[in-house]
Amino acid sequence: MDVQQLTQRIEQLGIAASPAAAGSAGSQLLSYFFTPKSGSKHPDNAEQDLKLVVAAIEEEKNLGPAKALAASVGLKDMRAVSGADLEKLLGRTRDQASPLSLPPSLAPSTLLITSTSLSSASTVSLPSPSDPSQSLSLSNEEWHKALLQLKQEGVALKEAEFFLKGVEPPKPAAQKAAGAPASTASTSAAAGRVAQADLEGQAGVQLGLTVKKEQSVFGDWYQQVLIKGEMLDYYDISGCYILKPWSYGIWQEIQTWFDRHIKALGVSNAYFPMFVSSTVLEREKDHIEGFAPEVAWVTRAGKSELEVPIAIRPTSETVMYPYYGKWIRSHRDLPLKLNQWNSVVRWEFKNPQPFLRTREFLWQEGHTAFQTKAEADEEVLQILDLYRRVYEELLAVPVIPGVKSEKEKFAGGLYTTTVEGFIPTTGRGIQGGTSHCLGQNFSKMFNITVEDPANPGGDKLHVWQNSWGLSTRSLGVMVMVHGDDKGLVLPPRVAQLQVVIIPVGITAKTTEDMRKKIEDEADRIAKELVKQGLKAKADLRDGYTPGFKYNDWELKGVPIRLEIGPKDLEKQSVMSVRRDNGVKGALPIADLSSSVPALLEQIHHDMLNRARETFDKSIVKVEEWEKLVPALNGNNIVVIPWCEAEKCEDEIKDRSAKESVSGAEDERAPSAGAKSLCIPHDQARFGSVEGKSCPNCGEKAKRWTLFGRSY
Amino acid sequence: MDVQQLTQRIEQLGIAASPAAAGSAGSQLLSYFFTPKSGSKHPDNAEQDLKLVVAAIEEEKNLGPAKALAASVGLKDMRAVSGADLEKLLGRTRDQASPLSLPPSLAPSTLLITSTSLSSASTVSLPSPSDPSQSLSLSNEEWHKALLQLKQEGVALKEAEFFLKGVEPPKPAAQKAAGAPASTASTSAAAGRVAQADLEGQAGVQLGLTVKKEQSVFGDWYQQVLIKGEMLDYYDISGCYILKPWSYGIWQEIQTWFDRHIKALGVSNAYFPMFVSSTVLEREKDHIEGFAPEVAWVTRAGKSELEVPIAIRPTSETVMYPYYGKWIRSHRDLPLKLNQWNSVVRWEFKNPQPFLRTREFLWQEGHTAFQTKAEADEEVLQILDLYRRVYEELLAVPVIPGVKSEKEKFAGGLYTTTVEGFIPTTGRGIQGGTSHCLGQNFSKMFNITVEDPANPGGDKLHVWQNSWGLSTRSLGVMVMVHGDDKGLVLPPRVAQLQVVIIPVGITAKTTEDMRKKIEDEADRIAKELVKQGLKAKADLRDGYTPGFKYNDWELKGVPIRLEIGPKDLEKQSVMSVRRDNGVKGALPIADLSSSVPALLEQIHHDMLNRARETFDKSIVKVEEWEKLVPALNGNNIVVIPWCEAEKCEDEIKDRSAKESVSGAEDERAPSAGAKSLCIPHDQARFGSVEGKSCPNCGEKAKRWTLFGRSY
Repeated sequence: MDVQQLTQRIEQLGIAASPAAAGSAGSQLLSYFFTPKSGSKHPDNAEQDLKLVVAAIEEEKNLGPAKALAASVGLKDMRAVSGADLEKLLGRTRDQASPLSLPPSLAPSTLLITSTSLSSASTVSLPSPSDPSQSLSLSNEEWHKALLQLKQEGVALKEAEFFLKGVEPPKPAAQKAAGAPASTASTSAAAGRVAQADLEGQAGVQLGLTVKKEQSVFGDWYQQVLIKGEMLDYYDISGCYILKPWSYGIWQEIQTWFDRHIKALGVSNAYFPMFVSSTVLEREKDHIEGFAPEVAWVTRAGKSELEVPIAIRPTSETVMYPYYGKWIRSHRDLPLKLNQWNSVVRWEFKNPQPFLRTREFLWQEGHTAFQTKAEADEEVLQILDLYRRVYEELLAVPVIPGVKSEKEKFAGGLYTTTVEGFIPTTGRGIQGGTSHCLGQNFSKMFNITVEDPANPGGDKLHVWQNSWGLSTRSLGVMVMVHGDDKGLVLPPRVAQLQVVIIPVGITAKTTEDMRKKIEDEADRIAKELVKQGLKAKADLRDGYTPGFKYNDWELKGVPIRLEIGPKDLEKQSVMSVRRDNGVKGALPIADLSSSVPALLEQIHHDMLNRARETFDKSIVKVEEWEKLVPALNGNNIVVIPWCEAEKCEDEIKDRSAKESVSGAEDERAPSAGAKSLCIPHDQARFGSVEGKSCPNCGEKAKRWTLFGRSY
Repeated sequence: MDVQQLTQRIEQLGIAASPAAAGSAGSQLLSYFFTPKSGSKHPDNAEQDLKLVVAAIEEEKNLGPAKALAASVGLKDMRAVSGADLEKLLGRTRDQASPLSLPPSLAPSTLLITSTSLSSASTVSLPSPSDPSQSLSLSNEEWHKALLQLKQEGVALKEAEFFLKGVEPPKPAAQKAAGAPASTASTSAAAGRVAQADLEGQAGVQLGLTVKKEQSVFGDWYQQVLIKGEMLDYYDISGCYILKPWSYGIWQEIQTWFDRHIKALGVSNAYFPMFVSSTVLEREKDHIEGFAPEVAWVTRAGKSELEVPIAIRPTSETVMYPYYGKWIRSHRDLPLKLNQWNSVVRWEFKNPQPFLRTREFLWQEGHTAFQTKAEADEEVLQILDLYRRVYEELLAVPVIPGVKSEKEKFAGGLYTTTVEGFIPTTGRGIQGGTSHCLGQNFSKMFNITVEDPANPGGDKLHVWQNSWGLSTRSLGVMVMVHGDDKGLVLPPRVAQLQVVIIPVGITAKTTEDMRKKIEDEADRIAKELVKQGLKAKADLRDGYTPGFKYNDWELKGVPIRLEIGPKDLEKQSVMSVRRDNGVKGALPIADLSSSVPALLEQIHHDMLNRARETFDKSIVKVEEWEKLVPALNGNNIVVIPWCEAEKCEDEIKDRSAKESVSGAEDERAPSAGAKSLCIPHDQARFGSVEGKSCPNCGEKAKRWTLFGRSY
């Protein structure tokens, strides 16, 4: 068909199609054409038959190679129509073809199998029949009209579902087009796979992100990048998530590093039971007050009601400290430094957020006891610095160490130090990990004392205690800071795959010998890098294009892609592509064992520096109140010369919340009011605070303090 | 006083004392004598005053050096009475002295402070006043009578409690002596430490084992060795225990080793939530039937009743497999191999046993899925061999790999393989770890299917699944197999301290310079060994004798002790003492970095070989029924040519239980009947089974099978 014919065709089909808007969210159409193999014995597969399978591009991964696709929808002994034949039939190349290119003459001999995802997609994009360089965007209603028209012309219609690994169909359009001919959606789904009814309620998943980090509801982007990047999956109990190997492996990297460093400080690991009796849990009233509303209670075992309900630990202070009182009998038993790697349960009723707010989460909790305050103070900072290093040296996430205000400190503790992170996209601060000095409050509560060696027989000394924790929340921060529109961007030192090697440039003309050479070399390079201690592999999956593989590994955030094709092999080099910034460069194969580790390190530093630059730029120094809320609204946090009065902190929060543009607080969203994030240890970077006044109350400022909206 | 005087004294005190029976369990008395320092300004401490502190020897660790002891009971400015002075006062050396050596003339000027542990001890042993080479054993009643008599003679009485790190007073005598003068137990406990009321119900702890492995109720020995060896502590919720660093560290060694090996098999770690919805949990009816009576249910969060109760996982098949159904979409997604390191909860109502039967326990659970049975079969054995290696290569515990009978296999699985261990002291088998082939049962239940690549469009293939688990039970087996009357014996490869270096031969005459030289050298050697990658330290604790330190580290099972004194230093050698067999040998200091690792390896092999020899000797080949129960009663297990009929297995259990000498089954004790333990993979070691008949039913034997009493 020529252009004119095709334009007519659109009219014929009764479609009010409009050019697709850039970045529109609808499903882009993929078309596959099959025809029976010559000599096919199947009577169903008459020679003139054309089978056309269409699906959303997001489902590409599901479809597999053409042969498997045909099989999955029950087409037997078919072959894909060659490009030349397709041009003869439709006057269009494969990329330009769609069901709309189908001339009426072919309709009676065509079977069109459409993905169920398309019948519920809000829009369907496909090559414009009139101008194949353009895309057309059809509304749901228009798409169904077109199908109805094709049906009336004699096309046989079927639907199939294409779900594969971790991939589910797009969510139905919010409003189904009124009057859409439901009958076109045949229920005789030939094949494919049906989502399990009992797993309903889990988020829908598509290959590739359908939302952009900066231009959409951030939570949608975050959820997509986690699920499509295979970091986690939703679970059928709200607020609980499955940590898949891709994220759990990162947590193990953090564990290994942190475990080694705390052992060097003399900390030992132990394991205390997950259960706490109510009497012990409730011993420290102030402490438990904060946790009580979130405590999960076991009341039944088998069919027996327990005599006394038993709590699942929300944290282990009250689990452990009675035994500290028992074990610590003399100053010789000090310091006592124990750590646990475990999970705790806080049954929050607020909207859950993967990694950030979950009902069960993994963490480490350290609990230490010292004879003197000086020792406790020293350890608080040693641990805090390890937390800083976890973020900066492993996750390439910059954080600011400091101390929490009295209002924000750990309930029942003496003071709390924190490493504060920043999510640029939302302009919010996020607490990265906290190291508390508990003072003597708990030791008095649990009677943890020693004889004062300096005053035998005199008053007992209550020990000085610390507790400190870092959780899988750190993984959420990492994802939020580094991820982009293509998916995850994993920091190289913790990525579970650091380098993926992909054969390229293999066409129909490539000899089998050359193909094997390239694949063997890709595999050899991978093995060589693994020998160097790197995490590398060659992606030799059959039936997937290099482009598909690029997208796949970009979505999963692998730091370096190495491409190797016939010309590379000739030049004995590979093309490296960095995930973090897309920069390409040729690397001689002979040097890979040094150039790749160096490049990984470079990526780490670049990621950290870029994120730090953004963080630094987003800290606005505010000395007059009028500038505070505008700064917040510009997605920044602020540093102010602060009086450190608790009343003033409350006022700042209320005042900034009221003045915020988005005054209406959404239960899902973090608060719009500014809380104090921390009083940075590094005061010098903000200059002298001498003589400055608090921008809220006008009182004399004590220290520079970070305020901001936060998670 | 001379012997006659002392004999009279016993009569005077009205004591019906009897010589102490060898190995009797009562508390042995320790006596400390103090007198005011000359020039003391304290008017309370008149020159003629004698202060006598007595405690149980089990509390020695608590008492600390004499100076600290005096301070802890409120005695100020006192010094220990010299040996010479003591002989003058009492006519007895320090070792021979006790409150019973106190002549009436000294009574009015004596303050006697007794440990509360003694007033409730079932018996008190002390040097006989008439024959100091003998011990006298006083019943609780007699002890109180003696105290009453001393009080009447003018002795002032006080009680104090001496609890230190992990040490609690002996359990009260089962029957308090009728008419014992309670008033002698003054409640004005001068000092020391009071056990926390809320921790009651925990087992009492004493330094050093008071029971022998072979001569007592094995459970008592096991409990003591775990608590005194600091492997664990009891917790205030029954069936839950605290894993202290000494045991948790061993678990981490197992984790590190096993994790590395399963990763080499392509297994990845993940984390699934601890909670399961009741619908999912109960999906597989047969499977859940076994677990249902032990499931702990969360029904409340904060003050809200949950709409639907939520279970805590007893195992994760039903937690994970719905997602396997979702993730496995094609044969390309196979094999799927995930493992979890987590804790599971089985709320057993049977008597708990540390490590062996606990309500929460740590384990790993692997869950894998394959396209073919052959792959699943292969992995079952690969994992089983890793379990064997954990036992043999890490814990030095021999096990026998084999397959479980149909009756004993995992409910819902196809077949179960196991590594079976053996506890010689009780003559019982113990299951060490199981690797199950689940067949296609769960994949049918949870609809985990793939397209058959050999038959596209044909029937779906249900995947073949395995699950396999190893728990902290392994630590219990290790303790039971290796421990002895002195305490733990830790296998060197997992011990958290492999070598302890103890300065010896330092007396009052040793110069300060020499003492420092020895201590420095001990420390230097420790550091040198640590540099070699060993776990070593020098025990330089002040105020403890070498003997005390020997006992302490023997109790805790440290594989090698190195003693270094002035003569050793001169010869540039140290004396090594093996924990496993007590063998001593001089080792040149210059060679320690090679000789110590070699010795550790030797110890490992010797421990394993000794345990294997015992295991092998305890497998009695039985071909006639009459010999079966006698073999069991001789603390053996048996291997029989077995017909493999389930009915026959039931009969063997019933018949052997009835014929057992200790027919009365104790709820605490494992069953007296013989269960099938496993059908060993290595059949050849038992010779040909051809032509043999089952000793129970007389049917044709299929394979040699291990039967025995078991845990």
